[in-house]
Amino acid sequence: MFNQQSNNNNNAIEQLVYSLSRLPSLGTRSARRIALHLLRRREATLLPLISNLQNVADNIKICQICRNFDVNDPCNICTNHNRDKSIICVVEDVADLWAMERSGLYKGVYHVLGGVLSAIDGITPEHLGIDKLLKRINDCHIRELILATNATVDGQTTAHYINDTLQLLNKTDLKITKLAQGIPIGGELDYLDDGTLAAAMKARYAV
Amino acid sequence: MFNQQSNNNNNAIEQLVYSLSRLPSLGTRSARRIALHLLRRREATLLPLISNLQNVADNIKICQICRNFDVNDPCNICTNHNRDKSIICVVEDVADLWAMERSGLYKGVYHVLGGVLSAIDGITPEHLGIDKLLKRINDCHIRELILATNATVDGQTTAHYINDTLQLLNKTDLKITKLAQGIPIGGELDYLDDGTLAAAMKARYAV
Repeated sequence: MFNQQSNNNNNAIEQLVYSLSRLPSLGTRSARRIALHLLRRREATLLPLISNLQNVADNIKICQICRNFDVNDPCNICTNHNRDKSIICVVEDVADLWAMERSGLYKGVYHVLGGVLSAIDGITPEHLGIDKLLKRINDCHIRELILATNATVDGQTTAHYINDTLQLLNKTDLKITKLAQGIPIGGELDYLDDGTLAAAMKARYAV
Repeated sequence: MFNQQSNNNNNAIEQLVYSLSRLPSLGTRSARRIALHLLRRREATLLPLISNLQNVADNIKICQICRNFDVNDPCNICTNHNRDKSIICVVEDVADLWAMERSGLYKGVYHVLGGVLSAIDGITPEHLGIDKLLKRINDCHIRELILATNATVDGQTTAHYINDTLQLLNKTDLKITKLAQGIPIGGELDYLDDGTLAAAMKARYAV
């Protein structure tokens, strides 16, 4: 950030810029802008940000049932009496759970994998809590399992693995579903990739 | 971030996402990504970031001489014996000072305005510390004043104001300069705006 001569005394600002620049969607230039923004607004922005970060660091736990982040364990969703505990939606990430909650349609509970199966990265079913998921399906009278992993190769491989494992267990009373594939709302055919268009054509329905 | 029903217990995460989303160059989506990134890496990223922010909040002061941010007051640049105290470079912002330092060429000292003159926003010469700058020019045997405000209308208006004020004081031993305008290094003529090209043509030099 500075040249060598003025380096010594500004370690506090430099370290802040460095740690900001390592965050996703930020580079060195935006990290510098944010650092200056915070320095200029110590009371209005910097101190509240520190207290919010500290609050999260102190209070957020991982739910032992579904692996969601929450101030409570089990989380707010797992303990909510209005939610249908017999439907589990399997998502890759807490971000996907948030996206699902924003849609406002789903009233069941979740299982957050926290990643996808990957031989290269050494991610095994245990890392994704799939053993716990199977135990939960066995113990809790689950009616439906929605495999809502991303529509990527890794996401679909992981969904296949979970499906195959459950088929082996021969759970005839469990319905396993996946999210529909097709044209996004507002999507234009011309801009869609061929795979999506093919999937939408294959799954066309009578109106 | 969440829908209404699951709103109550997640205030800690929501407040963090909100305060992150208010930072420059971040929106709600990238704020969510960063919040999750921090939650997943509590020890490796979240706690170091908090300590860096706290360190800056506790230790960074505004230099009484040049209005730079530093852990020391007067700042590292103002107290550096290797720098020429008889040349002052006037910049709008600490970010501009950092940019100048990165170029590594300038060995004088600075005056950080912290903004530009603006009747609409009520920014007067006092807000920019111009009175202190004039006092410094009077007291410290300044040889040269470099007006390095941005090449915007407001930046140039502010530079003109400072220049006019100094002309009135009739300081004949003070050289007032501005940064050269012209084609940026690596710039292509075709992509330059007309004003820059005209300025470069007017200031052409013999090779």
